[in-house]
Amino acid sequence: MLTATYVGDHRIEIRERDLEPVGVGQVQIEVAYTGICGTDLHILHGNMDARVSLPAVVGHEMSGVIAAVGDGVTRWTAGDHVTVMPLDWDGTCPACLAGHQHVCQNLNFIGIDSPGALQRFWNADADVVVALPDSLRLDHAALVEPVAVAVHDVRRGEVSAGDHVAVIGGGPIGVLIATVARHGGAEVVVIEVDPGRRAAVAELGFEVIDPTTTDQVAWVHEWTGSTGADVAFEVSGAAVAVLGSTDLVKVRGTVVVVAIHPQPRPVNLQRVFWRELRLLGARVYERTDFERAIELLDTGVIPADALISSMRPITETAQAFADLESGRAMKVLIDHSANGDQK
Amino acid sequence: MLTATYVGDHRIEIRERDLEPVGVGQVQIEVAYTGICGTDLHILHGNMDARVSLPAVVGHEMSGVIAAVGDGVTRWTAGDHVTVMPLDWDGTCPACLAGHQHVCQNLNFIGIDSPGALQRFWNADADVVVALPDSLRLDHAALVEPVAVAVHDVRRGEVSAGDHVAVIGGGPIGVLIATVARHGGAEVVVIEVDPGRRAAVAELGFEVIDPTTTDQVAWVHEWTGSTGADVAFEVSGAAVAVLGSTDLVKVRGTVVVVAIHPQPRPVNLQRVFWRELRLLGARVYERTDFERAIELLDTGVIPADALISSMRPITETAQAFADLESGRAMKVLIDHSANGDQK
Repeated sequence: MLTATYVGDHRIEIRERDLEPVGVGQVQIEVAYTGICGTDLHILHGNMDARVSLPAVVGHEMSGVIAAVGDGVTRWTAGDHVTVMPLDWDGTCPACLAGHQHVCQNLNFIGIDSPGALQRFWNADADVVVALPDSLRLDHAALVEPVAVAVHDVRRGEVSAGDHVAVIGGGPIGVLIATVARHGGAEVVVIEVDPGRRAAVAELGFEVIDPTTTDQVAWVHEWTGSTGADVAFEVSGAAVAVLGSTDLVKVRGTVVVVAIHPQPRPVNLQRVFWRELRLLGARVYERTDFERAIELLDTGVIPADALISSMRPITETAQAFADLESGRAMKVLIDHSANGDQK
Repeated sequence: MLTATYVGDHRIEIRERDLEPVGVGQVQIEVAYTGICGTDLHILHGNMDARVSLPAVVGHEMSGVIAAVGDGVTRWTAGDHVTVMPLDWDGTCPACLAGHQHVCQNLNFIGIDSPGALQRFWNADADVVVALPDSLRLDHAALVEPVAVAVHDVRRGEVSAGDHVAVIGGGPIGVLIATVARHGGAEVVVIEVDPGRRAAVAELGFEVIDPTTTDQVAWVHEWTGSTGADVAFEVSGAAVAVLGSTDLVKVRGTVVVVAIHPQPRPVNLQRVFWRELRLLGARVYERTDFERAIELLDTGVIPADALISSMRPITETAQAFADLESGRAMKVLIDHSANGDQK
């Protein structure tokens, strides 16, 4: 079978590998689709070499079908459609004991800290496998993980029906947050600097503004009858967006920090104090978010076809990364069946 | 009667003024004590000239006795011991309509935006007057306002019994937050760079560390069994304290921003994201905080005598500001009766 393997030095190699036997407590998943995301790009760029053991099979957004079941596994049967929630917590750290396993202090993020889905047959612990309904197409199901991120972010921000929500950054996660918030009854504006992304966001029916030509604070002020947004999501990763975010929200409003900011960012704490704002970090998802994401995809709330920009065979994984890097793609999937790859 | 009047250019003048008649809906308070606080110092330094109309009688921490009652006021009688909650909201802005009157978008902060307590007889709207029990000494009662700030901050941080709380900054508000949190059953450490303040904090029975000689993160890690503090209060106003605050708290922990930071401050948003932290702004107080502050002073929970560093007649108001500026004082009070000032 074929694997796409990060070998360091900005390189992905396609390697032929023998199938590994399925272990006790594991299932063997025939991977149907794997999504490539921004974190995978960070890995390719070498930014996460401290966490990744080379050579590394990455990939943590996927869908597939159970091919074989290891000893001790009773929950799964060959033929079941599944995805993986790629979080493996220790269950014993203070965060886990407090009920926050998803942000375990010693979290193993599967596909980053341990092998991932960019292989035709993937042996995974049965505990991390999540059932998919047969009605959900497997290409759409490869979006469950990023949709779960958005579900978690919106839940963390406590968005309610009727809220005004500003999403700063119109990439894949920003669009998914906007979609989930809108489905929950919120009014949404997306703030995005890139014209191509603005067009894609507008195509999905969202109000979208360009903060380089529109005064975003005045716009939101007008939009909300001088109140300010209930919740802003910082999904851009840009310092200027962080600094501006606190001016968008109402008294006692919320800014959810979704993007990764490797450097400390200037924050307007005077505004945080003056309006008694709340800044919340939001990371990954809990099981309930994953299950909700499956529902939202299965019921067509998430415009999966519009979001899947391209689909490539595993042999073109390097090009798939390049597609994403160009900034013109939303979601890029690897179709593991495309080149007839078998055991 | 005498007033202490800020006349601009870093100067306070003591002026003799005729008594003003008490208006409809007002009470006339014979002011007993007025506390000088950091905000008053900011006014003296000219930092708030945009808000203050010169010449300005400032002062918003006070206690006194009702001397006369205007037409239409039925709630108060001459001789009642009172203080003033110095917030005058418009009741119509979005923040007020959402129930957050204390952070009204058009708040008149009495003693800053309108005349305050540094005068022997003060005519105040009956609505902002709060009853004091006769059992509470009037000098102690001049601390109600800053204690209410601390009560609000601790309530905003949702501190619970058994929590580990780090208070960054051991000035008057930091000490009051530490006291209120400890009274609520929390374990408290105060982090303070000034040796004199550290000694004063230790004298009140608090654990106190010097972040310039102790590794505060390692200390808190050890103190909390590797969990991190439940809540940290940023009361210092220092950029380095803000940057360090996020390393002190547990997964899903809280940093309450109490200090005023006129400049945007670098915040470790990677840590906010990674641990799903919460940063909360906390400003002034609500009525319930004011009433709780009175109880805490009346029952001796607040060590008022230890906190009142000096007491001066109104004729020495400039020296009172200098006492506070030296950094060696906690609370400095003006005793309006000290020089026999009358109508």
